[in-house]
Amino acid sequence: MRTIKLVVAYDGSCYHGFQKQKDYDTIQSILEEKLALLCGEPVVIAGSGRTDAGVHALAQTVTFKTKGRIPCNNIVRASRSLLPRDIVVVSAAEVPEGFHARFSACWKIYQYRVLCTNTPNPFRMRYTWQQPVPLKLQEMNAAAALLLGTHDFSAFRSSGSVDSSPIKTIYEAGWHQEEAELVFRIAGDGFLYHMVRNIVWSLVQVGLGRRTREDFAAELRAKRCEFLNEPAPAEGLYLEEVCYKPYPER
Amino acid sequence: MRTIKLVVAYDGSCYHGFQKQKDYDTIQSILEEKLALLCGEPVVIAGSGRTDAGVHALAQTVTFKTKGRIPCNNIVRASRSLLPRDIVVVSAAEVPEGFHARFSACWKIYQYRVLCTNTPNPFRMRYTWQQPVPLKLQEMNAAAALLLGTHDFSAFRSSGSVDSSPIKTIYEAGWHQEEAELVFRIAGDGFLYHMVRNIVWSLVQVGLGRRTREDFAAELRAKRCEFLNEPAPAEGLYLEEVCYKPYPER
Repeated sequence: MRTIKLVVAYDGSCYHGFQKQKDYDTIQSILEEKLALLCGEPVVIAGSGRTDAGVHALAQTVTFKTKGRIPCNNIVRASRSLLPRDIVVVSAAEVPEGFHARFSACWKIYQYRVLCTNTPNPFRMRYTWQQPVPLKLQEMNAAAALLLGTHDFSAFRSSGSVDSSPIKTIYEAGWHQEEAELVFRIAGDGFLYHMVRNIVWSLVQVGLGRRTREDFAAELRAKRCEFLNEPAPAEGLYLEEVCYKPYPER
Repeated sequence: MRTIKLVVAYDGSCYHGFQKQKDYDTIQSILEEKLALLCGEPVVIAGSGRTDAGVHALAQTVTFKTKGRIPCNNIVRASRSLLPRDIVVVSAAEVPEGFHARFSACWKIYQYRVLCTNTPNPFRMRYTWQQPVPLKLQEMNAAAALLLGTHDFSAFRSSGSVDSSPIKTIYEAGWHQEEAELVFRIAGDGFLYHMVRNIVWSLVQVGLGRRTREDFAAELRAKRCEFLNEPAPAEGLYLEEVCYKPYPER
């Protein structure tokens, strides 16, 4: 039995999320269907984690086991013609038995993109959260800095999930400008259900001047068991990278 | 009767082109349906020209007549909540009676975007033509320069259209790099059916080294009545601007 690791990029716009669901197109169901053709046997993949409907991935990781002998390079090449154009296998590699996309992951990076524009941009509607007014970047970054380190993130968890522990360590969290868009980048050893989108929603309130850094601090410390507002929309969120070595000391 | 001119941006990915068609969502049918709600009466719009299925517009122009009294600013604002997010009214203005989106237009600018990348980019599949190898920009520009001036463009017309005259004047035509993408920009007083996409297909052959500038020159001069190959894919093409004053002398 070989264990294969794929790095997969996808535009999540047209899918009901990563995880397999009856009667719906999901990233997992399509990957399993096409990989089965390549491997000549049924394939069950494990992802590094789920992404919700509409959420994108620049580099999702999946692993699967196969008795098939197809070389990894051929998986990449052949997948191009089998997969729809919004799912791309970026790389494939054989990994040691026991390596698992989810359980072997040490930390992950997500990014969230906000476009501040008075006139909505139809070409970015699937890829950003559009705000009609400018956001205060400095204020958002002052609040985002409070996320660094190890905290109980229960107040930023949406209900409906069964996560093991709400205690997570955040290594990086901050906003920067990329041309017209504001990009929030957050790295951590784990994320609760909707945690990034809920954090973004709250940080954007700070950016709009509706809340202060202190409000954000109080929300983070609040001993609530779930987030009280709507998460920021799925379409702005990207799983950027899944890392399999401990976060480097700086 | 007032005559209103709208500038409209749209992502053409999910539409069967601009022109109204029975049983299909088109830009025209959706605009007419929503404008009728705003104006309180049936509305028939004229576009500056058709765009095919999958083709985008940064600034399509449409005009319509109405007895309704809704102020132009309100059309822009109210259309935000009525229209799907991939069709955006950028501006609205009252224009003199007799002004017509199509017949009053003097020249137009199109752009076509090509992304050269070994690994396909799922996020640009609706917005670029992706090529797995680099294209020779200089060679493409040397060939594109041949388009300038007044020519019979019959050899770059696809069959299935009834255009008045194949003689068109091209004011600008050239490629430039915008980050990872190559952008072809062409300005002219008129364009035949599929003309821009057919020109792009031939220029990309030059960029790939499969044809020379001389081959392109011969194709332009050929007294054919239609293009012999497939047009470049619709998703790379954008109607960039419609101009209502003569092309400025330089």
